[in-house]
Amino acid sequence: MSSSDSAWPRIARRPVPGSLIDELRMIFGARLSTALSVREQHGRDESPFEVAGPDAVVFCEETEDVVAALGLAAKHLVPVIPFGAGTSLEGHLLAVQGGISLDLSRMSRILRIDADDLTATVQPGVTREQLNAEIRHTGLFFPVDPGANASLGGMCATRASGTNAVRYGTMRENVLALEVVTAAAEVIRTGTRARKSSAGYDLTRLFIGSEGTLGVITEVTVRLYPVPEASSVAVCNFRSVSQAVAVTIATVQIGIPIARVELLDAHAVRAVNKYAHLQLLETPMLFIEFQGSEQEVAAQARTVQQIASDNGGEDFQWAVTQEERTRLWTARHHAYFAGMAAYPGCRTVTTDACVPISRLSEAIADSVSDADSSGLPYYIVGHVGDGNYHVSYLVDPGIPKQRALAEAMSRRVVECAMLLEGTCTGEHGIGLHKQDFLAMEAGPGGLQMMRTIKRALDPDNILNPGKIFSL
Amino acid sequence: MSSSDSAWPRIARRPVPGSLIDELRMIFGARLSTALSVREQHGRDESPFEVAGPDAVVFCEETEDVVAALGLAAKHLVPVIPFGAGTSLEGHLLAVQGGISLDLSRMSRILRIDADDLTATVQPGVTREQLNAEIRHTGLFFPVDPGANASLGGMCATRASGTNAVRYGTMRENVLALEVVTAAAEVIRTGTRARKSSAGYDLTRLFIGSEGTLGVITEVTVRLYPVPEASSVAVCNFRSVSQAVAVTIATVQIGIPIARVELLDAHAVRAVNKYAHLQLLETPMLFIEFQGSEQEVAAQARTVQQIASDNGGEDFQWAVTQEERTRLWTARHHAYFAGMAAYPGCRTVTTDACVPISRLSEAIADSVSDADSSGLPYYIVGHVGDGNYHVSYLVDPGIPKQRALAEAMSRRVVECAMLLEGTCTGEHGIGLHKQDFLAMEAGPGGLQMMRTIKRALDPDNILNPGKIFSL
Repeated sequence: MSSSDSAWPRIARRPVPGSLIDELRMIFGARLSTALSVREQHGRDESPFEVAGPDAVVFCEETEDVVAALGLAAKHLVPVIPFGAGTSLEGHLLAVQGGISLDLSRMSRILRIDADDLTATVQPGVTREQLNAEIRHTGLFFPVDPGANASLGGMCATRASGTNAVRYGTMRENVLALEVVTAAAEVIRTGTRARKSSAGYDLTRLFIGSEGTLGVITEVTVRLYPVPEASSVAVCNFRSVSQAVAVTIATVQIGIPIARVELLDAHAVRAVNKYAHLQLLETPMLFIEFQGSEQEVAAQARTVQQIASDNGGEDFQWAVTQEERTRLWTARHHAYFAGMAAYPGCRTVTTDACVPISRLSEAIADSVSDADSSGLPYYIVGHVGDGNYHVSYLVDPGIPKQRALAEAMSRRVVECAMLLEGTCTGEHGIGLHKQDFLAMEAGPGGLQMMRTIKRALDPDNILNPGKIFSL
Repeated sequence: MSSSDSAWPRIARRPVPGSLIDELRMIFGARLSTALSVREQHGRDESPFEVAGPDAVVFCEETEDVVAALGLAAKHLVPVIPFGAGTSLEGHLLAVQGGISLDLSRMSRILRIDADDLTATVQPGVTREQLNAEIRHTGLFFPVDPGANASLGGMCATRASGTNAVRYGTMRENVLALEVVTAAAEVIRTGTRARKSSAGYDLTRLFIGSEGTLGVITEVTVRLYPVPEASSVAVCNFRSVSQAVAVTIATVQIGIPIARVELLDAHAVRAVNKYAHLQLLETPMLFIEFQGSEQEVAAQARTVQQIASDNGGEDFQWAVTQEERTRLWTARHHAYFAGMAAYPGCRTVTTDACVPISRLSEAIADSVSDADSSGLPYYIVGHVGDGNYHVSYLVDPGIPKQRALAEAMSRRVVECAMLLEGTCTGEHGIGLHKQDFLAMEAGPGGLQMMRTIKRALDPDNILNPGKIFSL
């Protein structure tokens, strides 16, 4: 890895006065680090970007820590970058203008479980797997499941979703309330534990997806759901990606309340087989989950099986035991890492287009033909019930041409998605990587409005500067 | 009705220059009106407030009309108040500072129905009933259903919901994209037709619930849903409101995907019986709807019947025919008017608290005891599956003491809801009436953030000024 300073030459790092570091050390002691290894670790995510390390890292344990660190940074006009699990894919947490990384991973307490209300309140460093482990005894679960074991704060910041969104929605739908520290180092609360509200501007939704640029999220209240009485998982093979997509479209259009429907192309199945020691038939494939009562699950499965068989799908193979199911879904969640493992030394350039469901076949076919003719290794996975799909290109970081080729294809995926009335990012966010695409998608007026909000709420541009858009 | 000028003495009406009226007349001709009757009609909603008429009304037919009128108003620093169906309950559309009412009711075209994607795009004056009538042939429906036949633009502006929200969500969850005319008279588009997105700030959600204070909504893209294969509606009587609430709580907590569950207290049933010529037993009552396949509906109904019977509910009476079902739901939707009809000459002061479901019994019991001891006529209805309930007090506008008594009880309902971690408004919005409550709920920091956003996006405060909060 090269040093951060060469990674983003177009953005000036801001000076971080020694007096700020001294003041932070007074408060945080050993919870402040300026060690190179710690700074580098906090300037790197799962994106293909080079490291851009912060000048210091503060390990926060309580909201008051965030207030103190942010207050000092604000006084010195120094950038502050919230850091959760480090699993973002678009360079969200890179300290491209230097500054202080606020590591929130130790804010990992579940503050309240209100099982009767189907809500939980957690600190931002709690990960989705931790939350689900700690609420298992209640018979409830939290559905939003990006591939990585991300932190809830980070998932708020990127408006994350995952395989369950087709039934349960994304972070947008599943966060009821937030505690946020503002650019002025004030603590505000947005929302309540009521399921709905018309009380003024929807500040909760404004912070969901704001990528740390409007405030630092220090508490999250989420909705929980009863674990369904029954669930069953099937895999189904197809001769072509378009057949698998056709089955998905038909299923969504007739309103089957399917819990998850995930596409893997043959390349993805191959990588997943190798990574997770599975023996799936290496063709385009759907992973499908049905949930409900025993009867409902059976009825849904019958209907979807019929649709699949009408569209050239091979017979469903059922994951009968819980262990088999967990293995399948874990494999799906690890597809990103499986892809990289299949090409040692490579990094991934990932797209995240999302289109109206009727345009999905067209969108994916276009991407496949482009990728096939490129000669680059690639694979496709998709939360296809939502019209969201990822084409991931594997590139050798030592061969700049490969990266350029992947970026050009990524751009074409986005342009195609926009022509089809979709979005450049279904769930990963903008970060550093998709700023040009956001400009295309939001248009000059929309982008201007976002900038106006940013300038109003963070006039000194200290909150994760350089992300989402330039100012 | 008294004239508007005496209604809000604390807010100065702003001067509207004759030259603005002349310029508007040049463009709009007969679609500009300064007639007293038209102005009065546009300064009145379903709230108990006195009329505050605008200085002129412009009947818009296209987005360009909104751009033209808003551009002229901006030039002259004159307020602009969007007007849809006039059914708001909190004084949202009263021209408390004078200005121009933009009547959008003629913008009533359904622009696109994309049945394959389960979306429709409409002009803001389309009403919910109109939309459902015009898409009936597709087998799809739009679920959000406030009591009145509101316009989709108005429903966006107040973040409306209704009886279906427990299953399908509110306007927050069901709007994918908007076209909005900003304070600078620029047209922007937010969102796309994709079901989810992480592309920058969630401007769509910022406008949903902004009550016309940040922009004028000129186009709305909504989600549609397949009409369920089967549905059935039951009514169930209880000896007490708390029994009915207990059944609701238990049903929600075990995750029955109930479509609607509406509470009516005995007063509400009496009013509805009279208004809609029904013969319902005049006790506290739940209206419950189940949806799904035939089997699912039967299974859900069995479970809920068992819960009801465990909690002292009388046997379900089923509305067997579609005609009976429509009568019941129409009666429920007209409860507000039924209440007023029962007390001729009275107006309604309505609360709109929403609490976490486990606190609902406590909240309603508190309201009932307060209302019972007041001697004022009242009734309670509630979208209780969401924890949302309305206590409506009937007051004689000629007796100021009654209004004061009702307002005092309304305040106690809100205070109680907030103690129970709920919100002052589940679906009606803030408007003029709940500004003090919003200040309590959002806290100084949250309110300040809303004001900062408002000032940034509407620096001259021309968009529906005086609503949600003072500046």
